[in-house]
This record gives sequence, C-alpha cells and structure tokens, in this order.
Amino acid sequence: MAGLVVLLSDFGLTDPYLGQMKGALLAQAPDARLVDLCHQVEPFDISQAGFFLAASHGHFPAGTAFVSVVDPGVGTSRGIILLKKFGQFFLAPDNGLLTLIMHKAGEASAFQVAGPWPEGASPTFHGRDIFAPLAGRLATGATPQSLGQGVTLEGLVRLPGLRPVLTGQVLSAVVLHVDRFGNCLLNLETSLWADRLARAKSLSMASAKNSVQWVRTYQDMGPGQIGLLAGSQGYLELAVRQAKAAEQLGLARGSQVNFTLEAGD
Amino acid sequence: MAGLVVLLSDFGLTDPYLGQMKGALLAQAPDARLVDLCHQVEPFDISQAGFFLAASHGHFPAGTAFVSVVDPGVGTSRGIILLKKFGQFFLAPDNGLLTLIMHKAGEASAFQVAGPWPEGASPTFHGRDIFAPLAGRLATGATPQSLGQGVTLEGLVRLPGLRPVLTGQVLSAVVLHVDRFGNCLLNLETSLWADRLARAKSLSMASAKNSVQWVRTYQDMGPGQIGLLAGSQGYLELAVRQAKAAEQLGLARGSQVNFTLEAGD
Amino acid sequence: MAGLVVLLSDFGLTDPYLGQMKGALLAQAPDARLVDLCHQVEPFDISQAGFFLAASHGHFPAGTAFVSVVDPGVGTSRGIILLKKFGQFFLAPDNGLLTLIMHKAGEASAFQVAGPWPEGASPTFHGRDIFAPLAGRLATGATPQSLGQGVTLEGLVRLPGLRPVLTGQVLSAVVLHVDRFGNCLLNLETSLWADRLARAKSLSMASAKNSVQWVRTYQDMGPGQIGLLAGSQGYLELAVRQAKAAEQLGLARGSQVNFTLEAGD
Repeated sequence: MAGLVVLLSDFGLTDPYLGQMKGALLAQAPDARLVDLCHQVEPFDISQAGFFLAASHGHFPAGTAFVSVVDPGVGTSRGIILLKKFGQFFLAPDNGLLTLIMHKAGEASAFQVAGPWPEGASPTFHGRDIFAPLAGRLATGATPQSLGQGVTLEGLVRLPGLRPVLTGQVLSAVVLHVDRFGNCLLNLETSLWADRLARAKSLSMASAKNSVQWVRTYQDMGPGQIGLLAGSQGYLELAVRQAKAAEQLGLARGSQVNFTLEAGD
Repeated sequence: MAGLVVLLSDFGLTDPYLGQMKGALLAQAPDARLVDLCHQVEPFDISQAGFFLAASHGHFPAGTAFVSVVDPGVGTSRGIILLKKFGQFFLAPDNGLLTLIMHKAGEASAFQVAGPWPEGASPTFHGRDIFAPLAGRLATGATPQSLGQGVTLEGLVRLPGLRPVLTGQVLSAVVLHVDRFGNCLLNLETSLWADRLARAKSLSMASAKNSVQWVRTYQDMGPGQIGLLAGSQGYLELAVRQAKAAEQLGLARGSQVNFTLEAGD
Repeated sequence: MAGLVVLLSDFGLTDPYLGQMKGALLAQAPDARLVDLCHQVEPFDISQAGFFLAASHGHFPAGTAFVSVVDPGVGTSRGIILLKKFGQFFLAPDNGLLTLIMHKAGEASAFQVAGPWPEGASPTFHGRDIFAPLAGRLATGATPQSLGQGVTLEGLVRLPGLRPVLTGQVLSAVVLHVDRFGNCLLNLETSLWADRLARAKSLSMASAKNSVQWVRTYQDMGPGQIGLLAGSQGYLELAVRQAKAAEQLGLARGSQVNFTLEAGD
C-alpha cells in the first residue's frame, strides 16, 4: 500500500490548482492516500502554514509525508527541503515554513532536494510540477537520500520572531493564527509554558489592562471573561466564551501580546 | 476493506481541525474510506447539521458510519450517542443533532457511548480525540454494543420546534437551511406533505401576502414567481426562479413560514 | 481497481450536495477514487467550468473520468454528453461546458447519453441522481458505447465568443477566470499564442493605455508593472507582481481585453 500524503497550501478552493496538484501526485503514485490539512492559509503566509503543520503532524501516523506549498519565492533560486523528524517527512520550500517544526524537541535530519526538475515544469507552479511528483516518490517508498543530499539543519532558512521572550515578569508572545471561532493561537508551546502560566498568581494583558484567567475548557470562563487555555493545538490560546476573542481584544495574525505574570508559589 | 465514514461538522475549512480529525481517524483505521458531507455548518448550529444529515444519509450505502460534530457542549458532561437506523450508524453528541433522523419512520436502536476516553484527550476537541477514534473502530468493524450500552430512544435529547404544525388551514413551518442558490429548505418531509400541498386549490404565504405556486422543477416557475417544490432533499423547499428566494422573501435559517391552504377536492 | 473520477461543479461547499453526489457515486462504485477539481465555480458559469477543465485535464492520468455539473438547464430536455478525448472521459450536460475541450487539438468521439434515468431521479439534481451513477459505471469499466449512442461533434452545443480574434494589430481576448491571487486567465492557449506575443516588439492594452511586458515568471515584473505570461494553466494570463491584476486593471470574468501588438522581426 502506498503511503499517506497530507497536503497544505495557500491555493484556496476557488481555483483548480489543488485539484491539478492531486492529479500530478496520483499520476506518479496511483495508490497514495491523500488528506487535505488546509488550503486556505492566507496567501504567502509562511508562518501560519508552519503553525498549522506544527499543531497537526502529531495526529497523523508515523510515515506520513507532509507537503507544504506556501511559496512566495516560486521560480526564484530558493531551495526545496525534506525534513525527517518524528518518523515523518516534511517537504517544503526552504523559506522558513518548517521553523516551528524545527523548534520542537526531537532528532531531525534534513535533505536539500535537487533537480533536475521534470521537463516542462512551470516556473510559477512548483506545487504541481515539482512538489507533487516528489511527494509521489515519497509515497511509493523513495528514501530521503534518493531525493536529495543531506544538509545541516543550521543551514536552513528560519523565520525570526517565533520564539516567545520572557523579560522579568513580561512574557511577549505572538498570535500565530485566529481560528474560525475567533480564538487566538499563540507561539507558546503547551509543553513548555502551560505549567508556568497555570501556576501564576495573576495574569494580565498589558494592552487590554485586562486580567486573564487561566482555564481548562471554554466552559470554565464566565461570559465576557478572557481565558488563556491549553486548547487542543499544542499551543496556548486566548479565548472569550461564545465570543470572538480576536475581535474583542483587537488581535489579528501577527499581533504581539504581552502578558504580565505575578509569580505564584 | 474498512468501511465508509462520512464526516459532518462546523469546523470550517480555514483551520487545520478537520485535517487533524482525519489524521486521528486514519491512525486508527488506515483503510477507512472518508467522505466529507459538509464542514461549513454555521458554528454551533445543531439543527442545520441535523438537517444535512437527514437529507443526505439515504444517498449513502448501508453500513456507512456518519460522524457529526457540532458540539457547543464539548467538555461538559453531555453524552455521546450512537444510533443505528436504516442499516447505517450515526455517531453524535447527545445534543439533539439527530432529532430529524429520529423523526423519520424506521426502526432504530441507540447506544450511550461511554469512556474511558483516550488518555490526553483534549477537553476542547472531542471531534479529533474521541469521535475520530470511535469512528475508526466502527470503520474496522466494531459493533455498537462494543462501543456503548443500549439505551431507550426516549431518553435522548431532542430539539423542540422541528415538527410542522397544522392549525385549521394554516401550516406553520420552519426554514432549516438556505442553500447556495438561495432556496429555503423547510421542515416539511416530502413523503408526508407533498401530496397534500400539491392538491391544495390555492396556497399563500401569510407574511408575504403572496400566492405560492406548487411546481415540479425550477423551470416551471415564471420569472419572479414563488414556487414550492419537492426539490431533491427529501424536504419541501421555497424557490424563486434564478433568484435567491431567501433574499426576496426576507427569510433566513430559523424563520417561521405560515402557509394558508385552501383545500382542493 | 476502479478508476479515477474527477468532480467539478458549482455546488459550493456550504451545502451537502457534493457529499450526496459522492455517496451516490460510491454506492455504484465502492472502489472509485474521487478527486475534487473545484466546486466553487460561480453558480451557472458554464464557461468558467469549461476553462477549469481545459486547464486541468492534462495533469491527470489517462483513463480519468471527469464529471462536470454546472447545469442551469437541469430538468429541461437538454442532453447529457460523454466525450472521449486524450484517452480520458468527459461527462457533462450538453450546454457548451466542453467547448474549450473541443477547441483543443486532438481526436475525439462523442456519445449522447440516453436514459432511462434511475427511477425516482430528482428533476432538480441530476448531478447526484443521474451523473453520479453514470460516473460510477464509467469508473467500473463501462464503455462509452454502453452508456449512449455515438453522435457527431458538430451536433454538440458550443459557447460562442471563446475564440480570440486578431484584427490587424489588435488581438481581442476574454478573461475566462480571475484566480485567488488576482491573476486574469485569458482565452489564449499558450501553445498557439505564446511565441507570437513573446516576439512582439511592443505590447499594450488598449483600455489601460498601459504597456504590457512579456515575462517568464511573476518575479520578472517590476513593482506595479503589468505582465503577460505563459503561467501554469496552458493559457496566457495577465498579472501584476504581488498585487491583484484584476483589481488594478478593472477586469473581471467575461471582460474583453484588447492588446495592440507591434510586430517584432
């Protein structure tokens, strides 16, 4: 049986681009199993795509190949990389999309995927003409080594500003994504930050002069109360019960959020 | 071969939530066949989701498992139910989502699905962490009995107001859904109401003071005319030819519509 | 193994219509492989659907069956056709949707698909009740001959106005589609027009009084510059670097664009 391939892009669903990419993939690997992670990443938003990947990969089985195409540099000389981590494969442009995946704890190896690209590959649509056939090869059992040359992780492009900064009592975080329900997903990995914030004696948002409540579920908040919770994405999130936190707090993707922590015991 | 699983939710397509749920399902049942019914149910709109299910299940083969996650009570003590009806399986929160399915004629049996839930299940995302593995077990042949305990249908939560009311000559119905083309789908099952309304000598809408024409297809209406027809969804619908009936008639999901029937022969 | 079926429609994703169509198809052909090309074709826009198909089919393997349901005449006596071309199958209403496919070079044969339609087929939803079972039969190996009677291509409905017109130095084209990135896709097949336009000494748009630059990729344009390029869709497109060409140039689907060419050597 051919492998599971998960697709992530900013192609949207109003054009035939995603369908064409699937056609090219299935032409190479007729038995591959395809799953859409999301294709409504904001156009060119590398960091949102990277967040989706970091929040999602752990729910897929080992061996899954993730193909991420948010690629403002398509047609330039930017590289293509294949990262092997968590027993899974991550194929993406070398533009920082995999930064959060690289930040996570775990052993990884990286490969610079080299051409020659398929003859006639469009310089404007590598997703279909280059990434899809590569994914097809992965799905049919090709090794990373057969796709490219091993490189050091240090040489790969990383997005700056994705690590939270704690200065004294002020924790400076960034909104990585606002979800359909208005919840604001932050660059605070649950495994690194939940305990510390749950233990804080008080918590407030500098901007909103509002106190923030550490809660376990959306139902634990009172109406209108601002909650910070571990959520389900592996990253902490700001929420307001049955309201859109982003609207209420004036936050959007990329917004900086400063929390003031009064230390607990 | 593993079974067919149909997914219905209010997750939308701009977040990675649906993809994560599919990952969790395939981790459990690698060969399951997945079909999306719709994921753009209005957030928390249990009755719209229930309508989609009631209108759609009959077009899928026997043995299909429908997993419906519109779940405003996620993380509370609301139950999870598995209904077996029409030779198919319906997994949903016990919040009334299956009301229209239960209203339909046919033998049914119900099961209260009990934990223990998977360790580490998120209290805010049961779709991925509880429903998906359950669906995976159904897809690989688990019996309802192995998932939960048989319960009486009478004990299940039902949404009120979904049964039409006929008082004298006035038939009071509700708009369950406005589709992409502006057609208004009503809580009038075709098998129960079509003959009676088709035979009416005249038909009018109290609110619009407009006469309504019983028609067979959209093409049978004159321009601007209001048509009531059997449509394709198993429920009657209001339409205006090549126009959006909802806009023209000022109707939306949840709107009440009163028809006055002058009886025919 | 059952075949690959590609689905194209104007059903959108906010209704359960597409899911129902897939259910009907899988009821007929449980092993069919389904891929969505696009379901957000503008309601009733036959020419946009035809463009998506013409731009996409070449990326799918031989033997693929394309089922296209943009069908304003559903329920009338319009026919249903099956076209065999490029070793692939194209099933569609006989309403001109396949015009661009027919314009392409290549041998083709056409079949008029005849009933009797399945008993109880809805007069308003042939996609689910007629096209899906037909597609299921194709996917399980039915021959075109077993689905309908051979007819001449000349007898099929074609949309007018889809061929570009060159009058002296003025090339008159039409915008077939505006994509998510604002690029304007034109009815100028790359294989027929790219060389000629690339060789032009100068190129301008009559309406915009703007000079247009022939470019190879989006990156070859300066900021604000209007580029004409071969793109990835097999048809030429107008683009503005990291801006929405359609907005900037006041173009939309169906807009006419007149280029003035000063001949090169």
